[in-house]
Amino acid sequence: MRRLLIVVAVACLSVPACAGDARTAAALRDRALGDPTAWNVLESLTTEIGPRPAGSPAAQRARDWGLAKLRALGFINVHAEAFPHPSWARGDESAEVTAPFPQKLSVIGLGGSVPTPPNGIEANIVVLKKYADLLAHPGAFKGKIIVVDQPMSRTKDIAGYAEAVVARYGASEAAKRGAVAYLVRSISTGDTREPHTGSGKFGADAPRIPAAALGVPDADLLAHMAARGPVRVRLKLASFVRPNSMAWNVSGEIVGSAKPSEVIVIGGHLDSWDPGTGAIDDGAGVAITTAAAHLIAGLPRHPRRTIRVVMWGSEETGGSSDAYLAAHKNEAPKIVVMGESDLGSDRAYALELPPGALRRPALRPLSKLLAPLGIAVSRQAPKEAGSDVEGLQGAGVPVFALNQDATRYFDIHHSADDTLAEVDRAQLNQNVAAWAVLLYLVADSDVNFRTKPAK
Amino acid sequence: MRRLLIVVAVACLSVPACAGDARTAAALRDRALGDPTAWNVLESLTTEIGPRPAGSPAAQRARDWGLAKLRALGFINVHAEAFPHPSWARGDESAEVTAPFPQKLSVIGLGGSVPTPPNGIEANIVVLKKYADLLAHPGAFKGKIIVVDQPMSRTKDIAGYAEAVVARYGASEAAKRGAVAYLVRSISTGDTREPHTGSGKFGADAPRIPAAALGVPDADLLAHMAARGPVRVRLKLASFVRPNSMAWNVSGEIVGSAKPSEVIVIGGHLDSWDPGTGAIDDGAGVAITTAAAHLIAGLPRHPRRTIRVVMWGSEETGGSSDAYLAAHKNEAPKIVVMGESDLGSDRAYALELPPGALRRPALRPLSKLLAPLGIAVSRQAPKEAGSDVEGLQGAGVPVFALNQDATRYFDIHHSADDTLAEVDRAQLNQNVAAWAVLLYLVADSDVNFRTKPAK
Repeated sequence: MRRLLIVVAVACLSVPACAGDARTAAALRDRALGDPTAWNVLESLTTEIGPRPAGSPAAQRARDWGLAKLRALGFINVHAEAFPHPSWARGDESAEVTAPFPQKLSVIGLGGSVPTPPNGIEANIVVLKKYADLLAHPGAFKGKIIVVDQPMSRTKDIAGYAEAVVARYGASEAAKRGAVAYLVRSISTGDTREPHTGSGKFGADAPRIPAAALGVPDADLLAHMAARGPVRVRLKLASFVRPNSMAWNVSGEIVGSAKPSEVIVIGGHLDSWDPGTGAIDDGAGVAITTAAAHLIAGLPRHPRRTIRVVMWGSEETGGSSDAYLAAHKNEAPKIVVMGESDLGSDRAYALELPPGALRRPALRPLSKLLAPLGIAVSRQAPKEAGSDVEGLQGAGVPVFALNQDATRYFDIHHSADDTLAEVDRAQLNQNVAAWAVLLYLVADSDVNFRTKPAK
Repeated sequence: MRRLLIVVAVACLSVPACAGDARTAAALRDRALGDPTAWNVLESLTTEIGPRPAGSPAAQRARDWGLAKLRALGFINVHAEAFPHPSWARGDESAEVTAPFPQKLSVIGLGGSVPTPPNGIEANIVVLKKYADLLAHPGAFKGKIIVVDQPMSRTKDIAGYAEAVVARYGASEAAKRGAVAYLVRSISTGDTREPHTGSGKFGADAPRIPAAALGVPDADLLAHMAARGPVRVRLKLASFVRPNSMAWNVSGEIVGSAKPSEVIVIGGHLDSWDPGTGAIDDGAGVAITTAAAHLIAGLPRHPRRTIRVVMWGSEETGGSSDAYLAAHKNEAPKIVVMGESDLGSDRAYALELPPGALRRPALRPLSKLLAPLGIAVSRQAPKEAGSDVEGLQGAGVPVFALNQDATRYFDIHHSADDTLAEVDRAQLNQNVAAWAVLLYLVADSDVNFRTKPAK
């Protein structure tokens, strides 16, 4: 591979407008590791905006922040694409054991939950150790509050989350079986008492009952109590929906020097859940992709193709992907490839590219360039490339995924602990370095991921 | 040392009422490592009672729990010693940045704080990086909310805490300089957003202003904001005092077989702060000392002296030590030695005994017996033996300290994260083993720590 690298570099020295050379990519990579941009963007977003659920007043401030930040960093064609987004909002929330062992519980409503009556719902609980135990029961929970105390497995990828998160969607199944409220152990690998929110799912075929997540120790506490006999819990959730609110996909470009209409679309999502400051989900993704593009913009010559950074406006409660698809359907054939950074700020360890990508001459240096970052280039096509690229992915746009180490991510995700304090600057910049290398090589090439590469 | 061990064991085989033998101590130690009692006591206390600030209704339930638990475990002379304890109680609390970057803050009132007016106090903040910066200022903070953002050092012993905690006592110093409220970065080594409470100090020589602890990331957030310009914060604290409340030291004994009036007094404190379930502070101390004494009670013959377990009723807000001194002053000369377990549930690493203790023949096996537990017997006399033994210590009662590894303790201490989820069962039992060994050897001896040992 060393020999190949030299060949590419030498070839480029003699052809000014040739495909992105490995030497420049390596220099970008090394510069990224010490570049302050990602950290500064993330510090700015968490400090000046903080939590920013789609449809909230803070989300509008985040839109303005995004526009200003992209302009300040030299992006052009900076604009916001609006779309309607009826938004769910949280009010006061509390839960407590009322008998036989009165204690307060740590709880957070799930996105989309209906409120309880103002005085709450008080009922006996049924604690189920596994979500499957709920599905297995035909209908024996009339008048009960269901508590699902199913732990989540810690995995490096999102397998543990994918397996566990179904329990967060169980309110309708509980309602079909007569339950009056649904409490789920936080979908988390942590053991702190901060509960982890996230969207619930509420089917049209079941009564809508209030649903919330318990702190991990709180779910265990209820299990310990229930082992002793009947336990009564009171749950209060206030929530409301802003019916006419809007969301925005904020976008800016590093315009290509040769083929500006060919676009690589990357980004993170600007919206966040409300308990934390949205640092790892997904301020980090916004910061990483913005910083990578900004670093490339600092080259003496822009790459041949355009790099577009999109700060998607409604990932957590859905909508930005469909809105982006609707607005960019006609452009789809010119979108070279898309990718989203949305798994926190810890290091990337694997890059998954469209099929056959490594046989493209322009991308052959990738493995060698990413190896010093501890990133392997996988031969597998990406399974998950991010919720916000799914719309255009479905319309045939190729995607890639730079997989990050999620071992620690779900300790923090969707909880109040999602703050800048959890971000490791070196790992954040390792992501920037990887994105910069990949973006530069693709943007300065003519690779067409829609055609079959040479054998 | 192996030779010594054999000598002691052989000697005891031939003298039925001899000093506690090392072989029995070793057997107790090994049994302790697999004994379920400490875990069961701790699980019971955190599940059935949970948070139990002195003077609260939960503290009264904890008293009854303690009496019932000691009786169920076979202790005798089980009783509660009441003392008056005007108690401070928390109401609703909140804080938020109102301008220029509106965000909610994570905050918890300090014990003893006056409430704010119902609508809160809103003022510009002054962020000080060190508590010393407050003391160095003569009086320039009129109308301001002081924010002290001083980090705490992580240490294995309590040195880091001792150094940092003075900042929690700074409200009066801020008030003297014209401040209208006082916010201190949680005295914590953690980085989660749960704030850590604890008692404040409010001098008679200064106006009483509301005081609260910020989550660690929240204190940093305010520092980041303040670096940009003026920041306005609104603080709301509701608190009240129950003037006529009571507290109780709950006590039970394993009565000595030869000299029952000679007493070794040990225990943990039964009261806790309110945000967590009081698992590591100090359910663990209650559980460890109760389990160690219970294990010894299971021997075919009780040790010569009495072992008394006291669950002190008001450590966090003070009072149990003085009450215990007042009630047991006359008994003081018969109290052989006292010790308290009050540094969580993580492993012990050093035993500090009254001066000259290792020259007592009965205690010579200690080093050898504790070595397999990773515990060194220090030649230093104890500096800190626990707040609840200070009264009698001042009256001349010898004390010992079994120092625990506090590296992780202050991540959790006084916060909502103080739950059973943070307790490692193996480390909890390592403490039980160490306490059992020490207690047995002292209780089955005639060691008098008040006389000079032989050279």
